[in-house]
Amino acid sequence: MSAQKIVIIGGVAAGPKAAARARRVAPDAEITIIEKGKLISYAGCGMPFYLSGEVSKFDHLFETTYGVIRNEEYFWREKGCRVLTQTEARSIDREKKEVHVENLVTGEKYAVPYDKLVIATGADPFVPPIEGLNLKGVYKLNHPDDAQKIKEYLDKGEGGEAVIVGAGFIGLETADALMKLHMFCSVVELQDQILPGVLDADMAEVLAKKLTEQGIEFYLGQKVLKLEGDEEGNVTAVVTDQGTIDAELVVVSVGVRPNVELARQAGLTIGETGAIAVNEHLQTSDPDIYALGDCVENTHLVSGKKVYVPLATYANRQGRVVGDNVAGGDSVFRGILATGVLHSMGFNIGRTGLSEKQARDLGYNVVTSLYHGFDRTHYHPEHGMVLMKLVTEEGTGKILGAQALGQGDAVKRIDVTATAITMGATVEQLAEVDLGYAPPFSTPIDVSTHAANIVRNKVAGLAETITPRELKQKMDRGDDMVILDVRTEPQFKMRRLKDNRVKLVVLGDLREKIDEVPRDKEIVVICALGTRSYEALRTLKGAGFEDVKYMEGGLQAWPYQL
Amino acid sequence: MSAQKIVIIGGVAAGPKAAARARRVAPDAEITIIEKGKLISYAGCGMPFYLSGEVSKFDHLFETTYGVIRNEEYFWREKGCRVLTQTEARSIDREKKEVHVENLVTGEKYAVPYDKLVIATGADPFVPPIEGLNLKGVYKLNHPDDAQKIKEYLDKGEGGEAVIVGAGFIGLETADALMKLHMFCSVVELQDQILPGVLDADMAEVLAKKLTEQGIEFYLGQKVLKLEGDEEGNVTAVVTDQGTIDAELVVVSVGVRPNVELARQAGLTIGETGAIAVNEHLQTSDPDIYALGDCVENTHLVSGKKVYVPLATYANRQGRVVGDNVAGGDSVFRGILATGVLHSMGFNIGRTGLSEKQARDLGYNVVTSLYHGFDRTHYHPEHGMVLMKLVTEEGTGKILGAQALGQGDAVKRIDVTATAITMGATVEQLAEVDLGYAPPFSTPIDVSTHAANIVRNKVAGLAETITPRELKQKMDRGDDMVILDVRTEPQFKMRRLKDNRVKLVVLGDLREKIDEVPRDKEIVVICALGTRSYEALRTLKGAGFEDVKYMEGGLQAWPYQL
Repeated sequence: MSAQKIVIIGGVAAGPKAAARARRVAPDAEITIIEKGKLISYAGCGMPFYLSGEVSKFDHLFETTYGVIRNEEYFWREKGCRVLTQTEARSIDREKKEVHVENLVTGEKYAVPYDKLVIATGADPFVPPIEGLNLKGVYKLNHPDDAQKIKEYLDKGEGGEAVIVGAGFIGLETADALMKLHMFCSVVELQDQILPGVLDADMAEVLAKKLTEQGIEFYLGQKVLKLEGDEEGNVTAVVTDQGTIDAELVVVSVGVRPNVELARQAGLTIGETGAIAVNEHLQTSDPDIYALGDCVENTHLVSGKKVYVPLATYANRQGRVVGDNVAGGDSVFRGILATGVLHSMGFNIGRTGLSEKQARDLGYNVVTSLYHGFDRTHYHPEHGMVLMKLVTEEGTGKILGAQALGQGDAVKRIDVTATAITMGATVEQLAEVDLGYAPPFSTPIDVSTHAANIVRNKVAGLAETITPRELKQKMDRGDDMVILDVRTEPQFKMRRLKDNRVKLVVLGDLREKIDEVPRDKEIVVICALGTRSYEALRTLKGAGFEDVKYMEGGLQAWPYQL
Repeated sequence: MSAQKIVIIGGVAAGPKAAARARRVAPDAEITIIEKGKLISYAGCGMPFYLSGEVSKFDHLFETTYGVIRNEEYFWREKGCRVLTQTEARSIDREKKEVHVENLVTGEKYAVPYDKLVIATGADPFVPPIEGLNLKGVYKLNHPDDAQKIKEYLDKGEGGEAVIVGAGFIGLETADALMKLHMFCSVVELQDQILPGVLDADMAEVLAKKLTEQGIEFYLGQKVLKLEGDEEGNVTAVVTDQGTIDAELVVVSVGVRPNVELARQAGLTIGETGAIAVNEHLQTSDPDIYALGDCVENTHLVSGKKVYVPLATYANRQGRVVGDNVAGGDSVFRGILATGVLHSMGFNIGRTGLSEKQARDLGYNVVTSLYHGFDRTHYHPEHGMVLMKLVTEEGTGKILGAQALGQGDAVKRIDVTATAITMGATVEQLAEVDLGYAPPFSTPIDVSTHAANIVRNKVAGLAETITPRELKQKMDRGDDMVILDVRTEPQFKMRRLKDNRVKLVVLGDLREKIDEVPRDKEIVVICALGTRSYEALRTLKGAGFEDVKYMEGGLQAWPYQL
């Protein structure tokens, strides 16, 4: 019997990972990777850091941790896998079990036979059908070639005005990189919030305000109509349905689409999301063909629905599963929580599971909480703030999702919550986790524990809350109420809601001044973070006040003008 | 009916937290805190950071996040709780339900009646019975008074040689603080490892080597016999059973003992650990008396055994439970994982659950893994290494515990694992968690996922491993074997095991040079971190080699001379 032939189409992330694992499990297999580009196994996620100069050399994106470049030779010598670069898979003959390829340099066409085939064709950036995309200074950022072109432009040091189209992960990472190079950055987004589908609108508003304070300009809910250029063919402006933004550099990052043509032509099932459908074994509708990475859809572990969320971590973790299975094993990849994290302009941002909107759209009754506090003890010099939102199911207390952002370590709390959600935890269980505490790392009661406790307080009837957004709506509607600010006087003087319904009673004075608070009006208590206003709410409730709410997240999470 | 009387003995951390929660839940209750010291509600964990100057003002340890000092007035005005400082609880009359107290200033004695009593008497540092403890320059570090005294000494700026007795959490944090002040630090420890009971010996050895490289000197397995001083009564040396260490400053931090005298005298049940026994509701053997914080024992959630692990996070989280229960609620505190974290000399250190030794002592059959790698993508400028050890139960795959250390973010991985253990996760489940990935935060496959995957590989028979400690023993025994180093030549030239059984074959050359590797000998493959040696093991196994192991953790985790 001849050696098992494993053929992998795609040499960026998922393909090489599957190859490496298959090799370790099946030493005798003949493993071939087919890649249409010149480069293989590169760290696509590193591109924004290459632009900013944080990654100093282009080659670093292709190196192992021990400094060896991951090229064809590396794969052959260290992994015993053959890599055919600049070779495009044109079609799959499932009956003969062979892939028809073309050498893009020589034009040679031939067939590569397989016993097990792996499709790791990834995704390509979606480019909106607008005029002017061919102007000089207009780039996308998906392939290292793109990064190198932008880097060449940036290295000229002309600085100037950059416009990024798309306020998703790549858009905000790119903005961060360009701002580090002292470019002036605008971000245009079709949706009316940044990070649509990632953060709920309330969290996105807070983040947008913080990033705006750092100097990024957002043009939300605007559709790009065309790009304008000068007579030399250099881009000069981005024209949207609401105005014109000057631009010397444009980066288009409005998302990606799975490369499924090869699979579709071969008659493999394409899912409703538009990506290749696979089962838990990452098998396509043909049991001898597996698919993984950015070209497949995944099962969302909370909703059970199919979703298309192309992330590098799935490509890598799925590589292990596919590597096992093409080598005769039986591994599974159950699904994802669409956990996504991002660093931009000093802010750490993360999310996992379902957003409130996603949960409500799926028919869940939800209880949310918003906690705003420090990631470390406030007396530790490196502390930073984290705003965390927890989305839970009413009745069961099951955690459905979480979002967090701030200059503090928001991402650790997202990872903890992702672990809890994976295990089907309730808020009680999340609140009970024995997390590590020491002043350089956390507070005695951690951010995620606080967020869980707020849900418990709400469910127990101890805390009625209102979100900044809801309070703003009430203010704009002209509702009759008292907005009771319980911060200190210096804090109040520095920054406050400009509204004649606002009344200051410092928390420490509330018990003795309680008669100054009207009993016949709705009361909304506010403070900086939400902690003192909750305390004040309990004091008022204890004194018989009935219609009292406090504003979750506090004024630090107030996304409007102050 | 008169208001419910809640009396709390102890005003440091657990007591005030219980009081604050009780107030929020029971607005009408009469809440009294009795504290024998002058200071209340202080951040004891912040003391090492006050010594180092990272916390610039003593008062910061007593402030709320919004800058209000937590004193008697604060508790009365903001929380509606009465605080009696410098008032000592002398005895409890359970029949009459009153606490007999003495005002330590006036000498006045009186009884404070209670409906529900809370004991939060904390712990006091254990001071070993040695000569010379009264010499000038000898301190403990448990109370802010201690911190202030040491700070006064340090502020004289005399520098010099400090000896810390005890290599536990406080000992290593204190060493970190003193080294920041350019003192020369030695640490004496009775056990033959640092962080005994916290880390397994193998992890402790690696950490001790790293900290030694930073300049700390460890004297392990040495018993302090006495402290010597000069004619002016200043300490000059620490004398152990093995020698004399010069010292101008001595900090004794050999652990704490629960303050249980009051409870014992009142006839309350004291547990086998020597701390007050409580049920899940944190009720003592008297249903009207609750206890929490450093004076109680807890249930270990993995072993189910009672343990005494006094940590600030338990004091705080238990405060919520006791606050609820004394106010008529029904909250529970199920137990702990003894999660502990620490920062010292640039290293982040953490542990949760059972150590390997603890697990084996309890009769578990365990499978462990050691993963050594980067906390972020290696091309990101802020990456650091993390060495993580996972302890799992053979057969079930249940995670029993984890330890991690390194200049990278070890603590995040401990928090994730603690969450997994709380939920009873197996290694498969830990490996499946959808953790957030982006280059500033993690690698596409996270440290904890890798650690879980190594266990899976071992269980699947893909990887036989040996620990550095085991290899050292084999080397010392003179075992016949080949130690196959598969790193690059420059790496090998820079630093390697000096042993004539070592043979270099660079991983990339292994396939073509495989005949140079003897087939009749035991082979131990080594590399820098363990990644390449695992790859080489699979290559050798694939080529028919049978007796092959790789060294987990790599040479970076080699705790001996190189």
